[in-house]
Amino acid sequence: MVTSPILSELGTEILIPICAVIGIIFSLFQWYLVSQVKLTVEKPAAGDGKNGFTEALIEEEEGVNDHAVVQKCAEIQNAISEGATSFLFTEYQYVGIFMVIFAVLIFVFLGSVEGFSTSSKICTYDATRMCKPALMTAVFSTVSFLLGAITSVVSGFLGMKIATYANARTTLEARKGVSKAFIVAFRSGAVMGFLLAANGLLVLYITINLFKIYYGDDWEGLFESITGYGLGGSSMALFGRVGGGIYTKAADVGADLVGKVERNIPEDDPRNPAVIADNVGDNVGDIAGMGSDLFGSYAESSCAALVVASISSFGNTHDFTSMMYPLTVSSVGILVCLITTLFATDFFEVKTVEQIEPSLKNQLIISTVLMTIGIAIVSWIALPSSFTIFNFGAQKVVKNWQLFLCVGVGLWAGLIIGFVTEYYTSNAYSPVQDVADSCRTGAATNVIFGLALGYKSVIIPIFAIAISIFVSFSFAAMYGVAVAALGMLSTIATGLAIDAYGPISDNAGGIAEMAGMSHRIRERTDALDAAGNTTAAIGKGFAIGSAALVSLALFGAFVSRAEITTVDVLTPKVFIGLLVGAMLPYWFSAMTMKSVGKAALKMVEEVRRQFNTIPGLMEGTAKPDYATCVKISTDASIKEMIPPGALVMLTPLIVGILFGVETLSGVLAGSLVSGVQIAISASNTGGAWDNAKKYIEAGVSEHAKSLGPKGSDPHKAAVIGDTVGDPLKDTSGPSLNILIKLMAVESLVFAPFFATHGGLLFKLF
Amino acid sequence: MVTSPILSELGTEILIPICAVIGIIFSLFQWYLVSQVKLTVEKPAAGDGKNGFTEALIEEEEGVNDHAVVQKCAEIQNAISEGATSFLFTEYQYVGIFMVIFAVLIFVFLGSVEGFSTSSKICTYDATRMCKPALMTAVFSTVSFLLGAITSVVSGFLGMKIATYANARTTLEARKGVSKAFIVAFRSGAVMGFLLAANGLLVLYITINLFKIYYGDDWEGLFESITGYGLGGSSMALFGRVGGGIYTKAADVGADLVGKVERNIPEDDPRNPAVIADNVGDNVGDIAGMGSDLFGSYAESSCAALVVASISSFGNTHDFTSMMYPLTVSSVGILVCLITTLFATDFFEVKTVEQIEPSLKNQLIISTVLMTIGIAIVSWIALPSSFTIFNFGAQKVVKNWQLFLCVGVGLWAGLIIGFVTEYYTSNAYSPVQDVADSCRTGAATNVIFGLALGYKSVIIPIFAIAISIFVSFSFAAMYGVAVAALGMLSTIATGLAIDAYGPISDNAGGIAEMAGMSHRIRERTDALDAAGNTTAAIGKGFAIGSAALVSLALFGAFVSRAEITTVDVLTPKVFIGLLVGAMLPYWFSAMTMKSVGKAALKMVEEVRRQFNTIPGLMEGTAKPDYATCVKISTDASIKEMIPPGALVMLTPLIVGILFGVETLSGVLAGSLVSGVQIAISASNTGGAWDNAKKYIEAGVSEHAKSLGPKGSDPHKAAVIGDTVGDPLKDTSGPSLNILIKLMAVESLVFAPFFATHGGLLFKLF
Repeated sequence: MVTSPILSELGTEILIPICAVIGIIFSLFQWYLVSQVKLTVEKPAAGDGKNGFTEALIEEEEGVNDHAVVQKCAEIQNAISEGATSFLFTEYQYVGIFMVIFAVLIFVFLGSVEGFSTSSKICTYDATRMCKPALMTAVFSTVSFLLGAITSVVSGFLGMKIATYANARTTLEARKGVSKAFIVAFRSGAVMGFLLAANGLLVLYITINLFKIYYGDDWEGLFESITGYGLGGSSMALFGRVGGGIYTKAADVGADLVGKVERNIPEDDPRNPAVIADNVGDNVGDIAGMGSDLFGSYAESSCAALVVASISSFGNTHDFTSMMYPLTVSSVGILVCLITTLFATDFFEVKTVEQIEPSLKNQLIISTVLMTIGIAIVSWIALPSSFTIFNFGAQKVVKNWQLFLCVGVGLWAGLIIGFVTEYYTSNAYSPVQDVADSCRTGAATNVIFGLALGYKSVIIPIFAIAISIFVSFSFAAMYGVAVAALGMLSTIATGLAIDAYGPISDNAGGIAEMAGMSHRIRERTDALDAAGNTTAAIGKGFAIGSAALVSLALFGAFVSRAEITTVDVLTPKVFIGLLVGAMLPYWFSAMTMKSVGKAALKMVEEVRRQFNTIPGLMEGTAKPDYATCVKISTDASIKEMIPPGALVMLTPLIVGILFGVETLSGVLAGSLVSGVQIAISASNTGGAWDNAKKYIEAGVSEHAKSLGPKGSDPHKAAVIGDTVGDPLKDTSGPSLNILIKLMAVESLVFAPFFATHGGLLFKLF
Repeated sequence: MVTSPILSELGTEILIPICAVIGIIFSLFQWYLVSQVKLTVEKPAAGDGKNGFTEALIEEEEGVNDHAVVQKCAEIQNAISEGATSFLFTEYQYVGIFMVIFAVLIFVFLGSVEGFSTSSKICTYDATRMCKPALMTAVFSTVSFLLGAITSVVSGFLGMKIATYANARTTLEARKGVSKAFIVAFRSGAVMGFLLAANGLLVLYITINLFKIYYGDDWEGLFESITGYGLGGSSMALFGRVGGGIYTKAADVGADLVGKVERNIPEDDPRNPAVIADNVGDNVGDIAGMGSDLFGSYAESSCAALVVASISSFGNTHDFTSMMYPLTVSSVGILVCLITTLFATDFFEVKTVEQIEPSLKNQLIISTVLMTIGIAIVSWIALPSSFTIFNFGAQKVVKNWQLFLCVGVGLWAGLIIGFVTEYYTSNAYSPVQDVADSCRTGAATNVIFGLALGYKSVIIPIFAIAISIFVSFSFAAMYGVAVAALGMLSTIATGLAIDAYGPISDNAGGIAEMAGMSHRIRERTDALDAAGNTTAAIGKGFAIGSAALVSLALFGAFVSRAEITTVDVLTPKVFIGLLVGAMLPYWFSAMTMKSVGKAALKMVEEVRRQFNTIPGLMEGTAKPDYATCVKISTDASIKEMIPPGALVMLTPLIVGILFGVETLSGVLAGSLVSGVQIAISASNTGGAWDNAKKYIEAGVSEHAKSLGPKGSDPHKAAVIGDTVGDPLKDTSGPSLNILIKLMAVESLVFAPFFATHGGLLFKLF
């Protein structure tokens, strides 16, 4: 029954790194194109007043040759970049300490499983073979943990650098028209998307090959130690998401509360002392945080798939091509996304504002369609036509076409989640318009309608996830779920590109405002930003959907590794785990929301203080002290990220050690099924409020005009909703992805330890 | 091993009805005492200007002898009572149709299990005996369903009648001092509490005895058919909670949005056309709805305990005393609550405002302490020292002291939940004060802090519930969980008394305002009401905590009856059930909140219309058209309760029929662990916002004064929070109790049908 795949081992060994390198080169090429926009004065071409441009949308704008404006943009970009870099470095100091402590913990806990014995042991799943000692798996797990953590940090940092490199360039291009600006913002997003996807794949691939030199034929130990890579990636994402999330929203809420509400000055007004901190926040939260998060998902789903596959039939026969199937899918994904990107940048051109959103949406559709073909090919050439998968104690026969369906169902579920998210958060559709309409009767009805919208938006994504789980689980047990997650993440480069596009456009608008550029330019960047709001929500939808699948796969891998064969709700140990697990997302959200609230209050005090004590600030004759605000956000977010971080990191350890693996299984299942709902509803509620406000501000339709203009009572109510939504959509909501994934991957890594030494409390009584 | 309990069967047959009758007599006596306050002019005693009163707190007030004021109070009370009666009758018409359809459904579905055969069959759990035909169980289940439904309706209706009888009397007594008013409001609450507890017990007891005449020794069939009683009770509670909840909040939000926000007139101002509807709402939502809800919990937990016990060792040996243990616990509970009530009304006297809240809190403590002794005695005399309980296919040995611990842990968990709820919702503690403080920076921070408070308030109650479940589940499987729920509900009479006290005081304040009574009287009723807000939140905490235990017990009974022995999360069927089940509370909340929002908007339009078209309304020279507002609330709530009702009632049927009992088990577990969190957080968030507003209004401390007075910016922000909280705490939150309980009891009743004919979809493929 066991046949060899069509693709040879050598072919696999060539294909994966080649695709990764192509991704990196493509990314660098996009960077080069972005860098062609100079942050210096452009020389007029051959004395032509029109600058030699002939493209359709280019409109001449006073100031294209204004040296002062370009200079100012460069200055602001510098300030933002410095603020972001300084925050990330401060964050990395704390994270570094954490990494060292946790690395020691991994080594000690996993080493102690066999009492730090250095002798080989009989393999768990194949009693005829000898496996490497647990101590070495402890060493290699620690190493892969560190590699995952470093890759995640580098991904987030590079993403931030690219975004801060691109934002002023987008502003400058906006002087020439919406089309030019769109291309710059989108290309910059692509730089980040491809760099991250390719980098993550390459590091993982190299790590596996290096570890294989030591492990040889012991694939059980090899892929067990590789799970550390996922843990490393995800634990960095925790700090990126939580710390970055608190940073960005403390600054945003603080700036809005004094600026927009009390002082009645526009958003991003340079007189507002918190304005630089706000822009820094977009980069450290939405860019670096999101990058780390999706990298974590990618690393974890790969690790989950690999660890489950290591004890499958092709794992036992050491069929390298089949084993690398998850990585091959990701490799082909990079090629597919590359082609998809060309559709937005080269094959078609965005000429009007109306074309922005469809163009971004088409990216999703094109990549999904092409990827479906890609998966079919990979499933055909890189898998045996039939193989068996370990399924909680039993072996399950899987056909290659069934695995194709598993990956495919995840991929398409992602698209559905994307579209549903768009429907509930874009102001082109009735849900957001209804929320905007409810502002007529004040902020209270706006909040009520917004919360109801968020709750409702959960329904279809949950059904989509449930169907993916059912199909993939039924066909190929936990391996199926893991590859379904990979399917959803296979177009990650495109997903990240359109996602990063949002904060870049947002920043570009901020810079235009601060540099005192004309209203028309701000309108163009606002149009880019409105589309970006929706794509950001779609990106969050993807992140949550994939997190749900990933954590189920990790949960399954944990259960296998802890040698449990059933998780029976009808036992008190499991049930209380389920109940308490379902509570954790609430506890965690309470912490993060309160943190944002507290940090925002500090920011409000500082901004008020500056307005009250710096003479000439309101008149624009004196400059505010931006640095103090940046420092407040930095300090607050570093301090506030510790308790929620500790909750997530310590829960699996405490539950595993005191209550054992059954209760821990319950906790993981409970937090998964409960957390995914809050995450989706929080992120969509926030997105809807934001766009309801933008709907009133833009005043495009008759209905929207009847609610506006800016400063009207309905608009004020909409601003309150938007402010409430900020921590929901950018802090607590997205951080929940990490909560559910990280607890699962941590349990997986420590599973042998919990299985051996866990459940102390029950052992005592 | 099987020994007989100390209490003889005759003793049990006497004890239970005697206790129930004592409860009813006590309730009638309290009613008599309340009725002594006449809604007619009091004659001055012997020409004494002080009216002959000598008690400490009695303060002479102009208007005690004012015929016009008394007349006006009577009129307003009449209007409220008529509005409430008319709403309930309209509701009952729809409910009646539903009852008939559902009764037919029960009969057809259960009858079809054995193909409508009229011949006896071998018992499921004892193959040596013959049991009555499934058709007769279908008939008796239908009858007990109708009995449960009618008892629930009668309970809710009587509660409403008592409350509307008491509210104007409380207002009139408030003229004589806070002490007098407190006694009237509290006694009226006690009337409802005792009537409901005793009535529920008596009807259940009589039904069992009547059914026994037919069933004889077939206790399996007897107690299977009794489960219909729980379903009947809970399905009426659904309409009571959802319909009543939408009614009360549509009126409240609508009245506040125009009255307080737009027209700047005080709450309960008689010029506001929605003011009568608002007061009616308190009675149909908070009183009738809460009454039906807690009656449902009581009926369901009794049924769950009985059905599990029917296949225990004492069920097999037909030991009637042991079998009736759940009812004996409730009987003793009535006596304990009777003594407890005397502590508030006779042993101690509330003399000052500060004593109100401690007095109500002491009720909880006293009843819990006394009941602990009561349970100990009952467990000692009414149980064999050791017996076995059916535990998903196995038999489990239980000692009587272990069962005492099961009931006790539920009882004390209830007290802990009560205290935690008080801590998070009373403005005497820092959480609510922090929320009030956040109003300084506007409505947005108020909403953020309030949501965070609600999320945080979930932690300890969930741990309390988890510990109760762990203890009771470990000792006595699902029987233990069921009696733990009964333990929490054993002091239901006291719980309902202090809970009903709240809306009565609220109404009393409204009547004082509308009758144009002096500011001092309103201050007294406000003081009563502030304590009532907290007790209402405590009541909701009890309702949710008991609902969680009850539904787990029902879930366990369902699983036993559907002959499943494990519910393994590691199967796709169960896991997708878990995930979708966890989503249902969000779907349901989205529906109910949107319904309140929509109905409130209609109300706002009508109130605005009246203010704009009725000349002299603002000046108080013309009367508003109250009836139209009452009609809008009635129509909207009847119409809007159908979709959420259908979601709850149809989900178990659809899932059971199409996907079978495993997926249904997942759905029940998922909705339970997810719903309980949202229910607690929604109800506490709402309670906290309400009391944060009251904290600013009352301005008792320096801190509170710095935020006020009424009409200040922080106060306006607090009003917005309060309005957002209204549907959370009074509609969607409490309705979730019903969602989780009702789906479980419905699954239990239909279990034999699903086990035989369910899972069509999986059978097809």
